[in-house]
Amino acid sequence: MSEERIWTAALVVIGDEILSGRTQDRNVAQIALWLNLQGIRLAEVRVVADRTEAIVEAVNALRARNDYLFTTGGIGPTHDDITVDAIAEALGVPVIVHPHARAVLTEYYATRGGLTEARLRMARVPDGAALIENKLSGAPGIRHGNIFIMAGVPHIAAMMLDALSGTLEGGKPLASRTMGCWVAESEVADMLGAAERAFEGVQIGSYPFFRDGRTGANFVIRSTDQTLIDACFAQLAAQLAAAGHDVVDGGI
Amino acid sequence: MSEERIWTAALVVIGDEILSGRTQDRNVAQIALWLNLQGIRLAEVRVVADRTEAIVEAVNALRARNDYLFTTGGIGPTHDDITVDAIAEALGVPVIVHPHARAVLTEYYATRGGLTEARLRMARVPDGAALIENKLSGAPGIRHGNIFIMAGVPHIAAMMLDALSGTLEGGKPLASRTMGCWVAESEVADMLGAAERAFEGVQIGSYPFFRDGRTGANFVIRSTDQTLIDACFAQLAAQLAAAGHDVVDGGI
Repeated sequence: MSEERIWTAALVVIGDEILSGRTQDRNVAQIALWLNLQGIRLAEVRVVADRTEAIVEAVNALRARNDYLFTTGGIGPTHDDITVDAIAEALGVPVIVHPHARAVLTEYYATRGGLTEARLRMARVPDGAALIENKLSGAPGIRHGNIFIMAGVPHIAAMMLDALSGTLEGGKPLASRTMGCWVAESEVADMLGAAERAFEGVQIGSYPFFRDGRTGANFVIRSTDQTLIDACFAQLAAQLAAAGHDVVDGGI
Repeated sequence: MSEERIWTAALVVIGDEILSGRTQDRNVAQIALWLNLQGIRLAEVRVVADRTEAIVEAVNALRARNDYLFTTGGIGPTHDDITVDAIAEALGVPVIVHPHARAVLTEYYATRGGLTEARLRMARVPDGAALIENKLSGAPGIRHGNIFIMAGVPHIAAMMLDALSGTLEGGKPLASRTMGCWVAESEVADMLGAAERAFEGVQIGSYPFFRDGRTGANFVIRSTDQTLIDACFAQLAAQLAAAGHDVVDGGI
């Protein structure tokens, strides 16, 4: 596989609690950072409601055009957990009880009141799926082809990501280096644009902030090539300094 | 307009910094909560990269099927701020310099080094747009039909939401009431499902957590009818108590 190939993933966050504003999502940032370590870029995210049609539409649109598709949420034991059924529908396969998931849950609940019918729901998978280990709460995540079905609770999702680390094919991780500067981005916009054009394969993001009554910005230089990043950083920092704006390596 | 009509909005979060995991998004929750106060439901969210085609696709898909479409991010003065151009392309209209935006920026920058060409970028709007006031940093938000183009910096977006408060037509706000319980959701899953079925027009969300080595869950009862919510709450709380699980009104 050429080093030039960019591997992409999409994420479907499933949950009324995110759309209602009740819960602050943590999985987008967590999965983005983890994917980058695997050499995979998070290309797009959709947040959808706990509705079968919404999940089916998002899953089918995104799995076709990305190397990997992750979902978070909706894999618990209650009536609002419909992710497995919706994804099975998207894939056109039946839902089955996975024998190993059943065994894992039987053992996990042996000392916790036993495997009830509600709990057995968490052993249901789209036919053809493999499991993703969940050391924390028993109920496993699910892999089906290029689809990874994860828990919505962020620290359970984190455990599932741990279990997947190093198992997915990816490319070169996107590296980045940040410089902070107490300047209005509008004052140096031309300089930033010119620096990006001067270094092919580099993107520069500009992120303004307002703190303690002062205006500043962080400039994030991204590329798969650290040498390019450092060269771009050095040139831009010198230009900013020459214009009277000292930069803080690592950002403010 | 019937009280039964549900008004919906979608949100497109535009920004490589969210997809890279560098920045934790705050606008989804902020806009969701604000929309609910306006009687509008956030129905779906997409996070897309700073790429014209990605923005155009998301904007055109979502504006057609929701009453309102919000975007955040990409309206600053730098080369990576392409939201206005992308939305103009999606709408099939040219980009113009809005005279009032130009006047606002001229005044704002009068004591801040003057209105440069880069800063003038922030006066550009899709032809036919109105402005959304931004008391904080001069550069206004933009309204074009049912599309609201907001800043990405959360407290600037918050100011723009303030400026819009009470101006959008909506329906009945979705109310909610939460009860917390130190119980595994799997233990009471049947009870929750039955309670939801018993009260038409009520949704019950179940959100498990693990804290201090103990298992618990919050159950969020949502409806546009507070009376229904309270009746459902009372019945479910009584059933949980009868099963030996005391509930905490307001959640844990």
